[in-house]
Amino acid sequence: MSKYTIGIDYGTQSGRAVLIDVETGHEVATAVKPYTHGVMDQFLPDGKTRLEHDWALQHPRDYLEVLELTIPAVVKEAGITKEQVIGLGIDFTACTILPIDVDLNPLCFREEYQDNPHSYVKLWKHHAAQDEADALNRIASEREEPFLKRYGGKISSEWMIPKVWQILNEAPSIYEAAHEILEATDWVVSQLTGKVVRNSCTAGYKAIWHKQEGYPSREFFKALDPRLENVVEEKLSNDIAPIGAKAGELTISFAERIGLLPGTAVAVGNVDAHVAVPAVGITEPGKLLMVMGTSTCHILLGEEEQVVPGMCGIVEDGVLPGFMGYEAGQSCVGDHFEWFIENCVPSDYLQEANIQGVSTHQLLTDKATMQRVGEHGLIALDWWNGNRSTLVDTNLTGVLLGATLLTKPEDIYRALIEATAYGTRTIVEAFRTSGVPIHEVYAAGGIAEKNALMMQIYADVLNMEIKISASSQTPALGSAMFGAVAAGAERGGYATITEAATKMGRVKEKTYLPIPENVEVYEALFAEYTKLYDYFGRGENDVMKRLKKIKAESSRQKGEPVW
Amino acid sequence: MSKYTIGIDYGTQSGRAVLIDVETGHEVATAVKPYTHGVMDQFLPDGKTRLEHDWALQHPRDYLEVLELTIPAVVKEAGITKEQVIGLGIDFTACTILPIDVDLNPLCFREEYQDNPHSYVKLWKHHAAQDEADALNRIASEREEPFLKRYGGKISSEWMIPKVWQILNEAPSIYEAAHEILEATDWVVSQLTGKVVRNSCTAGYKAIWHKQEGYPSREFFKALDPRLENVVEEKLSNDIAPIGAKAGELTISFAERIGLLPGTAVAVGNVDAHVAVPAVGITEPGKLLMVMGTSTCHILLGEEEQVVPGMCGIVEDGVLPGFMGYEAGQSCVGDHFEWFIENCVPSDYLQEANIQGVSTHQLLTDKATMQRVGEHGLIALDWWNGNRSTLVDTNLTGVLLGATLLTKPEDIYRALIEATAYGTRTIVEAFRTSGVPIHEVYAAGGIAEKNALMMQIYADVLNMEIKISASSQTPALGSAMFGAVAAGAERGGYATITEAATKMGRVKEKTYLPIPENVEVYEALFAEYTKLYDYFGRGENDVMKRLKKIKAESSRQKGEPVW
Repeated sequence: MSKYTIGIDYGTQSGRAVLIDVETGHEVATAVKPYTHGVMDQFLPDGKTRLEHDWALQHPRDYLEVLELTIPAVVKEAGITKEQVIGLGIDFTACTILPIDVDLNPLCFREEYQDNPHSYVKLWKHHAAQDEADALNRIASEREEPFLKRYGGKISSEWMIPKVWQILNEAPSIYEAAHEILEATDWVVSQLTGKVVRNSCTAGYKAIWHKQEGYPSREFFKALDPRLENVVEEKLSNDIAPIGAKAGELTISFAERIGLLPGTAVAVGNVDAHVAVPAVGITEPGKLLMVMGTSTCHILLGEEEQVVPGMCGIVEDGVLPGFMGYEAGQSCVGDHFEWFIENCVPSDYLQEANIQGVSTHQLLTDKATMQRVGEHGLIALDWWNGNRSTLVDTNLTGVLLGATLLTKPEDIYRALIEATAYGTRTIVEAFRTSGVPIHEVYAAGGIAEKNALMMQIYADVLNMEIKISASSQTPALGSAMFGAVAAGAERGGYATITEAATKMGRVKEKTYLPIPENVEVYEALFAEYTKLYDYFGRGENDVMKRLKKIKAESSRQKGEPVW
Repeated sequence: MSKYTIGIDYGTQSGRAVLIDVETGHEVATAVKPYTHGVMDQFLPDGKTRLEHDWALQHPRDYLEVLELTIPAVVKEAGITKEQVIGLGIDFTACTILPIDVDLNPLCFREEYQDNPHSYVKLWKHHAAQDEADALNRIASEREEPFLKRYGGKISSEWMIPKVWQILNEAPSIYEAAHEILEATDWVVSQLTGKVVRNSCTAGYKAIWHKQEGYPSREFFKALDPRLENVVEEKLSNDIAPIGAKAGELTISFAERIGLLPGTAVAVGNVDAHVAVPAVGITEPGKLLMVMGTSTCHILLGEEEQVVPGMCGIVEDGVLPGFMGYEAGQSCVGDHFEWFIENCVPSDYLQEANIQGVSTHQLLTDKATMQRVGEHGLIALDWWNGNRSTLVDTNLTGVLLGATLLTKPEDIYRALIEATAYGTRTIVEAFRTSGVPIHEVYAAGGIAEKNALMMQIYADVLNMEIKISASSQTPALGSAMFGAVAAGAERGGYATITEAATKMGRVKEKTYLPIPENVEVYEALFAEYTKLYDYFGRGENDVMKRLKKIKAESSRQKGEPVW
């Protein structure tokens, strides 16, 4: 009788379960549950308590509903028995954190805290801890904290410590009441297993934890704020389980809620991009995975810990056990095209798309596909949302250069695609120059699956073949694989994630091969991109930052929110 | 009994007559005649003879029809007698040229030449003499011809000598058959008066003529092409009448065709932007006129001949007799906004404009007007159509910098307006630095009349008051004024253009005053513009030219026309 595992992928707007055949890796059933509360960025659920600018909360009840609804749904759809489900794995967008009490209940579940925004889940894109992040970076830099180099020189306001510090600053009573503050992925696992097991991926990439060195020193935390001196012992934990380990087993009560057997194995929690690595079959260094959506996350395994300028993080065991996991990122990929579609496409293009019965994206893609490389005469810097890697600078902004009176929307659209490809190549070259080799490139995510033009451009710009994830639910598949490893060989799963990846992970047959004549032109264009990248990005002309200052000053005078 | 003059302004698509009260300068009647043939850029009137790329021809019959229809129309509309019309003035878009026979008839009127494109009028925007212009500039530069410095170092392909040379190269029989090749404005005057009188404005700005030095030397023309050695004597003329002079009087036969008295005074021909100077009352140095339409032409009087880098031309008597006339230009002003409206405005903006019952331009202007200076965070280089002054480089292209995911269409629209204002300020500063003072700024043309936001931005960026032409037909009014001067005081006109300008020229009461707090922010923004202007425009990073080369190469490979 076949064995199955379930992977649950928690996104920004919904949670999704896939049920996977352990032997073949085939997806047998899938179910999606949109969150009831969605992203709360204006009001708390009471509809009255207003949130400040840059806030983004979620309600942890939504996470439980995902489990309660999607797991029975996939089991039913597959027509299998619960005995056949041997393991579960969870992945989340991160860093997404919440404060809980000693009974593992979120503080926002308790009536006395329901009107306090700090009692809820702070979503990854909660950006209101920028002041704390700025102060942290300043102090860390002054103290020459060695951890900074592992994070491209900067800790993001999206990450654990700034968010924890914001709670302390703005809601000391919540900070006080919190028995722990932890990643949502670890909290969901705790609900399934009845105990908290923190994972090495979010601890490493988001909470400044290092396998050998642990967290930053007590002195550092004290320098931030005396009340933070013992934050690790008081609110976090030094007990970190490596990715690929088993977190525990399903409790009797929770097994009942989701229609599975008590004792079913549960993997330690994970992060959506990172969990995708084995899902495309990557189990060794030198193979770069790009997870391409609104932004792109680049994950790469390495043998040794190297300092690569401007990456997001490097974590031992952070992706697969036994390897250094490097993460880099581009903060504006799909978002770029959405912005363009919403703000820059004339109505006759909409009409044309309607007549052809295609989306505006598709129409622009079709038109852009007709062009030869370099034909539009444009070059863009893909910094509409700042630059995450390799410059780690949110104050950089977008550039379009080369426009003429004959420039058409599809020209700009293609130039934006190319700019993101140049951005990826810059990251690839940063890795290589720093002694972290890249031999192969893989892509997963909606863009990788759907946008052939974009993938061809990436292949041409990188001058490398690009392999595409076979699954359209790559992270959920990856989580299911970790579920199979948690179950172990004796229960019908796998002993190691390497073995699981070999059996269950795969890419599509169709790959994107570089076209030599395109490669040649893109070499020349990439040289231009690099020249502009360095000029505007490395301090030669800080016009973007000065414009941002002027903009902030103007907006302040107007009495509007400034960002 | 009141006296009147008629000014006729020949544009690109139509000709327009205004009938003006000589004493008050008031516009009494106006009439427009669209050209029957319009701009011929694909076929000759036979509908079969195909024109090559970059050609733009007109049919001189259209110019005569304008006279025949509009002059009787304005006389009739005004309810006056033909005895009351004392003078006529003509202005044209230039350089617009045609070959004629000894009887002053255009060669294209003769059946044997009707299928030869070179027998027609080459409109100002005929750009097919680029090869000739390139060769001319190369040879002039090698020979260190002193005239180059009067034209910003470069002769445009739009101008007389390249166009004449193109005729010689491509249609030697037409060149041979031409008794003269002359400006359309001078040809129309010749039709009215029965003789050719060439004007100092087009001779100076478009045909490399200088009041003291005459045309370039015989040796220079020989160096271009031995057949051009005597081009001045054979096809042009050394006999140049100053602006403000009388060309002659209306012939009996032509007077009959247009319903005026024989003997009516006719002014020497003129150019639309230049003729606008006295129409706003400018009669002395230091007052800059901006004629703002699809492009902007800047005209300024000076006492002495100074070398100002990157101007379009400097001509003694070229604007008003007794002064040096400086011309500079921006090649993309209204065209900029048209491009934006056509290519970059999303459909919900169109809907919003429809609901409000305003144009898209108006909607964007309204939204942009709500902003504080610097609030959008953008800066643009206004080079969508190259840079005419001060860089004289058609291979420069547009830049938009500072875009974020929150950038809205009105932000970009306003940034484009500001970019053209920075471009004007750069020109103003070039004049000042070169010892040509500017104390006052005047604006004429559709944009000056209609776009209050733009005029305010110009006032703020220049930190100068801007006065606006009172007439919406400024060039035609100017031509009518020169008609009054041609008639002279004894016939009820004026002895000098200065006197005519004092009586007939005027600006609106409302002027645009700089707003100090805006001026301050624009100072900072203009510094950023200048830094980018120099970086991309003066050879530090020739990325635009390299992109154009790549673009040309790509387009060539595709088998498409290259430009």
